[in-house]
Amino acid sequence: MPISLTKESDVDVLIIGAGPAGLMCAMALSHAGVNVRIIDQRPAKVTAGQADGIQPRIVEVFQDLGTSVVLQSYGLADRLFKEAVQVHMAAFYNPSPHGGIERTDRAADVTAPTARWPFEMALHQGGIEQIFLDSMASKGVHVERPIMPTFIELSQNETELRDPSSHPAKVVLKHLEVPEGKSDTEIVYAKFVVGCDGPRDNLVSSGAHSWIRKEFGITMEGEQTDLGPKASSDIADIGKSDYIWGVLDLIPDTDFPDIRNRCAVHSHNGSCMIIPREGDKVRLYIQLADQDVLDSKGRVDKSKVGPEKIMEVANKSLYPYVMSTSHPIDWWTLYISTVSPFVVIQKLTCAIVGQRVANKYSVHERVLIAGDACHTHSPKAGQGMNASMNDTHNLAWKLAHVLRGWADISLLKTYEFERRKYAQDLISFDKRFAALFSGKPRTEGSEDGVTHEEFMEAFQTFGLFTSGIGVHYQPSTIVNPKHQSVASNLLIGQRMLPHVFVRAADCQPMEMQDLLPADARFKVVVFTGDTTDQVQLKKVRALAEEMDKPEGFLKRFGKSNGSAFDVISVSSAKKKYSNYTDAPPLFRSHWSKFLLDDQDMYKRTSAGGGYEAYGIDPHGAIVIVRPDGYIGMVAPFDHLLDIDNYFASFMVPA
Amino acid sequence: MPISLTKESDVDVLIIGAGPAGLMCAMALSHAGVNVRIIDQRPAKVTAGQADGIQPRIVEVFQDLGTSVVLQSYGLADRLFKEAVQVHMAAFYNPSPHGGIERTDRAADVTAPTARWPFEMALHQGGIEQIFLDSMASKGVHVERPIMPTFIELSQNETELRDPSSHPAKVVLKHLEVPEGKSDTEIVYAKFVVGCDGPRDNLVSSGAHSWIRKEFGITMEGEQTDLGPKASSDIADIGKSDYIWGVLDLIPDTDFPDIRNRCAVHSHNGSCMIIPREGDKVRLYIQLADQDVLDSKGRVDKSKVGPEKIMEVANKSLYPYVMSTSHPIDWWTLYISTVSPFVVIQKLTCAIVGQRVANKYSVHERVLIAGDACHTHSPKAGQGMNASMNDTHNLAWKLAHVLRGWADISLLKTYEFERRKYAQDLISFDKRFAALFSGKPRTEGSEDGVTHEEFMEAFQTFGLFTSGIGVHYQPSTIVNPKHQSVASNLLIGQRMLPHVFVRAADCQPMEMQDLLPADARFKVVVFTGDTTDQVQLKKVRALAEEMDKPEGFLKRFGKSNGSAFDVISVSSAKKKYSNYTDAPPLFRSHWSKFLLDDQDMYKRTSAGGGYEAYGIDPHGAIVIVRPDGYIGMVAPFDHLLDIDNYFASFMVPA
Repeated sequence: MPISLTKESDVDVLIIGAGPAGLMCAMALSHAGVNVRIIDQRPAKVTAGQADGIQPRIVEVFQDLGTSVVLQSYGLADRLFKEAVQVHMAAFYNPSPHGGIERTDRAADVTAPTARWPFEMALHQGGIEQIFLDSMASKGVHVERPIMPTFIELSQNETELRDPSSHPAKVVLKHLEVPEGKSDTEIVYAKFVVGCDGPRDNLVSSGAHSWIRKEFGITMEGEQTDLGPKASSDIADIGKSDYIWGVLDLIPDTDFPDIRNRCAVHSHNGSCMIIPREGDKVRLYIQLADQDVLDSKGRVDKSKVGPEKIMEVANKSLYPYVMSTSHPIDWWTLYISTVSPFVVIQKLTCAIVGQRVANKYSVHERVLIAGDACHTHSPKAGQGMNASMNDTHNLAWKLAHVLRGWADISLLKTYEFERRKYAQDLISFDKRFAALFSGKPRTEGSEDGVTHEEFMEAFQTFGLFTSGIGVHYQPSTIVNPKHQSVASNLLIGQRMLPHVFVRAADCQPMEMQDLLPADARFKVVVFTGDTTDQVQLKKVRALAEEMDKPEGFLKRFGKSNGSAFDVISVSSAKKKYSNYTDAPPLFRSHWSKFLLDDQDMYKRTSAGGGYEAYGIDPHGAIVIVRPDGYIGMVAPFDHLLDIDNYFASFMVPA
Repeated sequence: MPISLTKESDVDVLIIGAGPAGLMCAMALSHAGVNVRIIDQRPAKVTAGQADGIQPRIVEVFQDLGTSVVLQSYGLADRLFKEAVQVHMAAFYNPSPHGGIERTDRAADVTAPTARWPFEMALHQGGIEQIFLDSMASKGVHVERPIMPTFIELSQNETELRDPSSHPAKVVLKHLEVPEGKSDTEIVYAKFVVGCDGPRDNLVSSGAHSWIRKEFGITMEGEQTDLGPKASSDIADIGKSDYIWGVLDLIPDTDFPDIRNRCAVHSHNGSCMIIPREGDKVRLYIQLADQDVLDSKGRVDKSKVGPEKIMEVANKSLYPYVMSTSHPIDWWTLYISTVSPFVVIQKLTCAIVGQRVANKYSVHERVLIAGDACHTHSPKAGQGMNASMNDTHNLAWKLAHVLRGWADISLLKTYEFERRKYAQDLISFDKRFAALFSGKPRTEGSEDGVTHEEFMEAFQTFGLFTSGIGVHYQPSTIVNPKHQSVASNLLIGQRMLPHVFVRAADCQPMEMQDLLPADARFKVVVFTGDTTDQVQLKKVRALAEEMDKPEGFLKRFGKSNGSAFDVISVSSAKKKYSNYTDAPPLFRSHWSKFLLDDQDMYKRTSAGGGYEAYGIDPHGAIVIVRPDGYIGMVAPFDHLLDIDNYFASFMVPA
């Protein structure tokens, strides 16, 4: 076929792989107005079966995505609240001296004191993906499938690589379903390629098979802390030290009183884990005994195992409680784990997980990998999908800034710096956890085991990290920890703390996070101090005048329509004596932009006390919030120059 | 044309008029699965211009309509939160000793301590109507238009009138737009006809012109307390004691600091009222001086009046503040009022309004009238639309019960009893208000006038009533005040108080009102007392056993599928020691039905303290909540028979 018949085209961003990472990326870029395509080699999206916990931080991110402050919309989080299950409580069961099991403790399922929504949610992956698909569709972007990439080449020309308007990546795509007589081959020239093509089946922990990663020879680092679960396809070669788990989803009939809570159960018959799912469904992880599943030669006898067998064992382990189901069981599987069931359960309960991390996340900041393509993870612990979505949430605004010509292409280096560090932290976390536990519960016969109290302490300690709330990006071009003391609780490099303020103009309560939507703009939050104090007001006016100068960052980098920044102001004055007109016009481009740290008219919300919660210096503070909601820097009024320099280090003057 | 060519058909309910009352009715009936048609003679729905405040109680009703507890949906209120403006604060301005005006006070815009959402909302009538239309459309019901009724006849046969399956009403409809050669006449035989055909233009206060009302000779009672606003069409015959108002909607440019609050302004130049609207819009009511609008003969000179003139006067009245607009003014009008501007403004601020009420609301409970068809009202005060929607919210479930054969047709008598009483209360309220004020503010020259403090007290006092929260239905078949003391704060005849509890099974916080959706079922809320106290638990179990007997109301009136009732239970036990399995199965038909009066895991919501807030007897109480959210009766455990009798008085045994 003559080459001229092969379709050739340009695109700004080509995303390969339509799992959670790829869809988050495509959705965010589509709303940023970026010319983006997303392909996937599967003919249809994942439908059911797979499920992952949704961390409190991801719920905040979903809220930030698509939140329209004026319309009071709940953003994409609205869908989660309607479709996902909420898990508020965890329960712990251990052998009872009277036989069977008994409840040892209950605790909050998530330890995340500052989370806006302090609980875990869960929704099957198809449901999560549909939220992204619907949001993208409103911008005319759809997943093209089934298409697979067969060839990729990146220009080696330094000048081309440095020019954000060039298309240095050539990708050949093969359409897997084409009408008779049509070419199945297509050539795409992309400014950026994002590889989100890790293994989609997140029930498989064995090595991530990213095509992009392989093409560029990117390797995986870190030990494979096999939290266990080999795929059931590997189930033939079971070793002596392996543990076998039966896993199934069911709608239970039971007298077990914690069936709607996340449960870690240790019994003399083996361990179990219960995780509530959408509607009335729950997922069970049941440790099976060798004799339940193996034949005389020590191999898995599939005729011996099935949902009935798993339910039979579950009933032994949960005794004195009974469980059955009057509904068909639509999904079940077997896993083999090399780690003690005690550790598996504890790790799953803490949502901690061993990982391997790619040695780099990008090739010349032109080909970038994200999600499962750059970090492997064990299933069920809920970190995989969350980390994947957070990867591209971090990446998308940076791509948008570079493509718009707002930021230098070097901004993209911070993607690997921030997200690879996070993946590595997960590994060290896992090691600390492993070191903490011997693999056995403490019993009369095992004095070196872990007590329930020790476990609970670890559970609480690790919660902040595993909730996603504690993610802390290290100092870089876009994270400047210099003036932390003027906003002592707004940790630079962490996400902006949620808090309710009231609008000065109409006393309507507003959540600060809702004023910081993920709209690709930097937010400049000016905490003015008390604007009814004339001395302070004078300082605030002087600051506004200074910020409004041509050499200041707002004018230099704000672009002609000022769209790169959004300025919000918050006074510590009380509503009775305040007028929204007190704020200098620069600090209230709209009447809704000036807030007060005071209670609402009926004291119904948590409004008030924000200066204290944020640790704001009474003399005022300027807080720079990145488009992804993380605090980039803070400064006192008299160090405006530091903010100018912060933006000058990566932004391009208008 | 031969009669056989005229289309004839049966319908269960024919609604005439697609304003807020008619749409509320059609929407509620469509979701109850009732065979319903709704016609309107206008070719299209109202688009803009008209706006009414939405009371806190109506927001609760919207929430109850279509709330799906399982899906955590916000019901129809979701749309209000996205589309309507919220008004939280009211401000009061008076002449300043330094010239011009100054702020005297600020207060909460609504006095409704128990309201779930303690603020006022406003949305143009077209927006409100669209919410209903969308909801009805999901059930396949649409407004048929333009169609007008030309003839109605109700059977006089007693037997037929008493039989709910008969079609005693014959209505002839004329289709105003028909294809060439088609008949424009249709005959409908209806079980029930609901006349919601009051004047739709709620800017007109002069007499309600309901066709249905006239056909049956129903008259209006009560004096026409003309709060003023004659239609501008009547503007020619202006009298000496009349006051002229200019009214307009605009997007203002102003330094007036309360532009986003509801403002009552008295100035030496005349009075003004400011009401925030959706987006950046506000509505102004500006008192005009005679010389601004009248010619030398005392007649309105239309060439002298227009938006520019109104803005000119506004600027004089608001001095020292200035107001202009850079947007086109898309709506303005003139009103004439016979009442002192001081009273007009005070009344509008308090949302109080004179009314006239139809002498009856139904003809043999077969033809019923609702909304503007049975009570006239002045514009702007926000009672009209709210009262109209509450009328049919009260009526719809009763129609559904009768049509399903659940309740005797006599249940419909309570519609007139409850809603006509409410309209009459509004009148006496208005009289009390009129008596309170002389019509003048107290100034140095007018010592008998009203002080600001006196006004503020009235403003707060009347708030509970005008918010819709204080609506109190009097004793009747369905309101039995007998055992009030066992739930002392759940006032029988008032709506169920909002409060947050946690689910025993998973500790998820749940708002009680969300468990009481407007789904045509009676809710039986069993406050069990402390279920971890074995003595109390024994009583609770005995109660469940008693309630489950064949002669009890659940079995007698619950229908084969039990769909007439929903049972919810609430224990005062603490979550740490409670299991959802503690409740007898009758009190937890689903794991989500058993609640605890305890805090959530993170103490983030207002959960806890519910027994105290509701005034529940520690020995327990049974609370019957009607399908419209009002409390029908309460009883201690040992007076179950009274509940049996309550239902026996209007329900039909299965």
